[in-house]
Amino acid sequence: MMKKIVLRDDEMPTQWYNVVPDLPNGVLPPLDPETKQPMGPEKLAAVFPMGLLEQEMSTERFIDIPEEVLEILKIWRPSPLVRATTLEKVLGTKAKIFFKNEAVSPVGSHKANSAVPQAYYNKREGVKRLTTETGAGQWGCALSLATSKFDLECKVYMVRVSFDQKPYRKSIMQTFGANVVASPSMETRTGRAILEKMPETHGSLGIAISEALEDASSREDTKYALGSVLNHVILHQSIIGLEAKKQMEIAGEYPDVIVGCCGGGSNFAGLASPYIPDYLNGRKIRFVGTEPASCPTLTAGRLAYDFGDVAGTTPLLYMYTLGHDFIPPGIHAGGLRYHGMSPIVSAMVREKIVEPVQLHQLECFEAGVLFAKAEGIIPAPETCHAIRGAIIEAMRNPEEPKTILFNFSGHGLIDMASYDRYFAGQLHDYAYPAEAIAQSMANLPKI
Amino acid sequence: MMKKIVLRDDEMPTQWYNVVPDLPNGVLPPLDPETKQPMGPEKLAAVFPMGLLEQEMSTERFIDIPEEVLEILKIWRPSPLVRATTLEKVLGTKAKIFFKNEAVSPVGSHKANSAVPQAYYNKREGVKRLTTETGAGQWGCALSLATSKFDLECKVYMVRVSFDQKPYRKSIMQTFGANVVASPSMETRTGRAILEKMPETHGSLGIAISEALEDASSREDTKYALGSVLNHVILHQSIIGLEAKKQMEIAGEYPDVIVGCCGGGSNFAGLASPYIPDYLNGRKIRFVGTEPASCPTLTAGRLAYDFGDVAGTTPLLYMYTLGHDFIPPGIHAGGLRYHGMSPIVSAMVREKIVEPVQLHQLECFEAGVLFAKAEGIIPAPETCHAIRGAIIEAMRNPEEPKTILFNFSGHGLIDMASYDRYFAGQLHDYAYPAEAIAQSMANLPKI
Repeated sequence: MMKKIVLRDDEMPTQWYNVVPDLPNGVLPPLDPETKQPMGPEKLAAVFPMGLLEQEMSTERFIDIPEEVLEILKIWRPSPLVRATTLEKVLGTKAKIFFKNEAVSPVGSHKANSAVPQAYYNKREGVKRLTTETGAGQWGCALSLATSKFDLECKVYMVRVSFDQKPYRKSIMQTFGANVVASPSMETRTGRAILEKMPETHGSLGIAISEALEDASSREDTKYALGSVLNHVILHQSIIGLEAKKQMEIAGEYPDVIVGCCGGGSNFAGLASPYIPDYLNGRKIRFVGTEPASCPTLTAGRLAYDFGDVAGTTPLLYMYTLGHDFIPPGIHAGGLRYHGMSPIVSAMVREKIVEPVQLHQLECFEAGVLFAKAEGIIPAPETCHAIRGAIIEAMRNPEEPKTILFNFSGHGLIDMASYDRYFAGQLHDYAYPAEAIAQSMANLPKI
Repeated sequence: MMKKIVLRDDEMPTQWYNVVPDLPNGVLPPLDPETKQPMGPEKLAAVFPMGLLEQEMSTERFIDIPEEVLEILKIWRPSPLVRATTLEKVLGTKAKIFFKNEAVSPVGSHKANSAVPQAYYNKREGVKRLTTETGAGQWGCALSLATSKFDLECKVYMVRVSFDQKPYRKSIMQTFGANVVASPSMETRTGRAILEKMPETHGSLGIAISEALEDASSREDTKYALGSVLNHVILHQSIIGLEAKKQMEIAGEYPDVIVGCCGGGSNFAGLASPYIPDYLNGRKIRFVGTEPASCPTLTAGRLAYDFGDVAGTTPLLYMYTLGHDFIPPGIHAGGLRYHGMSPIVSAMVREKIVEPVQLHQLECFEAGVLFAKAEGIIPAPETCHAIRGAIIEAMRNPEEPKTILFNFSGHGLIDMASYDRYFAGQLHDYAYPAEAIAQSMANLPKI
């Protein structure tokens, strides 16, 4: 029986797919945080290279992947499409379950798909140094890999609690030559101000974004890189879905349901977006985006213009948001702890193309362990949310033959401390953070 | 340019290659430790299933891979063959450098290739429970994965120092359902006796083997599994070289030099052995086996019958050995800290087919970091020894066009603590352990 479909190097897509022009009613532009007017590329050019800003604003459906980027992606891409045959048996379902295995990237997740082109366009425009933030460290590792390939300096502001608790990801970044500091740090005004007030703080993604942006804005040779949310990131991640479409075709299958976990939206939209044109042409596909019940951006947030960071320094993005000063409870899927959502995924939800689903962390770890024993691969805590979503779909009516495709966004080999806590019974589910959401929603910027 | 060659599921080898019948002057049989007479399968059957013992003694060149085993291997196999194009550029060599990327296995190393068939043959013969030892944890993780797939209990005796220092590998085994204890443990006579004498001991692979064997011998439903050294393990690992031959052929290349690191010999022989028939038919290939200078089994050991464990309870194997009570210095490539060597690799060295090379750990970490920055993949400390060997070959005469193939046996994502110590300048090279070797050599059993 067919277990896995692989593609050769020369079968890898040579263009990315840009879903924006195909989205019904489109995507609203970012607003200048001061003037509240649509923000053109010239102002964003302080922190992003023009090559990426052109992609951010592009209305082209297909954009060529540069040869130099392809050459690096080919170290691990095309990634395998695997059929979870044992999981199907264990569940006793008639559904066929496929997953796209993005864990084969050298840093263990899909994040490298965007890190490589981001480093490339910066390098091409003479940038010498990139700054970024990282939470659990997946994005920081990916960008460190990419900057080492293009001989760029890389400065990573890593949320303090992860810096202390996930030493392996910090070491991976350092091995690739990146400079990693715990955030808040003494190296930025923002960081110093926060440390003065709260010397013991664990930090947050919002603080780290503010520090990385401040650093990039203050140096001529430096620009900033973001690992999710933005249109150009989702463009880069479309390679996942483009490959998956070819592979499913070779397998003689077409997905009835596509499932992915949603933090900033990049892995989900990366897999889903190349299927959107078929959907709009009448093909019956369901798109299911899973998110943590404790950070329910799509299911309990509001579609509004909001900041991407706590400090309120980024452009305003039109997206589902829980409010930019919402601090989610400490679930172990650090990559899903974000108050906002990519404007592209937000538009898909607004148009009722994507069905968002809330999941609790214990059911997700349970699904992850079941998957690991069945298919031999231990998923990252974020990926457990996709697996749980796929299992729910497979078990909705186990007698119904249907085809499920989900994104296996990353492995959990460097997240084993979370599994330890799960097995030790030290993890729990969180009550719906109603009060915190109400408070942060009240602070949405007035447009 | 071609970066990587992949094979489809249906191009995966369906037979293993057994090099034993092709080795000039063959391989001597194991001896009974009591009678010093050749040991037949009936006595070994106390700890190994007949399916594996048949393979251990087999004189067949090709042995079918069971369908159930193929199905599991296909989760990640065939593994990619990658050309290290950037490394070539960085080195400024005219050599072409290829590597077989065994790091794509779900546990990050080649060990799973033998763990899966070992679990299968035990399951087929009604065994309910497997015991094994693990040092750094690679083999323990692989066997835990395999036993979870065949619904066998798994008990891993993990060397105390790794149990304490490598918590992630322990957690991986537990996620797959294995029972992991620090060795020496209170659960065996051997363990209790050692703990009574040395309550603070760090343990050793030799002690852990003795405990796992004692456990397996004392229960009817239990057998023992070993991750390297034995003929059947090298048979299973031949899938690496069989795939590589096909892939190199597709690339239009043939290796002038094949390089691998040698601990017990399984990853090196797995890649090298399918090329032995060509060599014996007159094809010019050099086989280079790299080993730590601090555990120089092939370069400073003696070819003799010796025990596989410290306690002297295993059958006597005819192999290069430093003496079964040799304790290597604490280098970070835990998988290469073994006093003996597979009888198959030993025979290849005896016949001057394989050239053994000594390397120090600092030059290997340096090579590993160079490789990581060039090719984006962080190697395990053991794999750094193969990379260093390949680089030496590429730089011997950088103007000479030649083709080098090495085995990338595993990634280092769970070994980052070793890299931290390397970057912090806390690692050093060890002087040649002349006195320790002289002492342990004096204790070789008299045959």
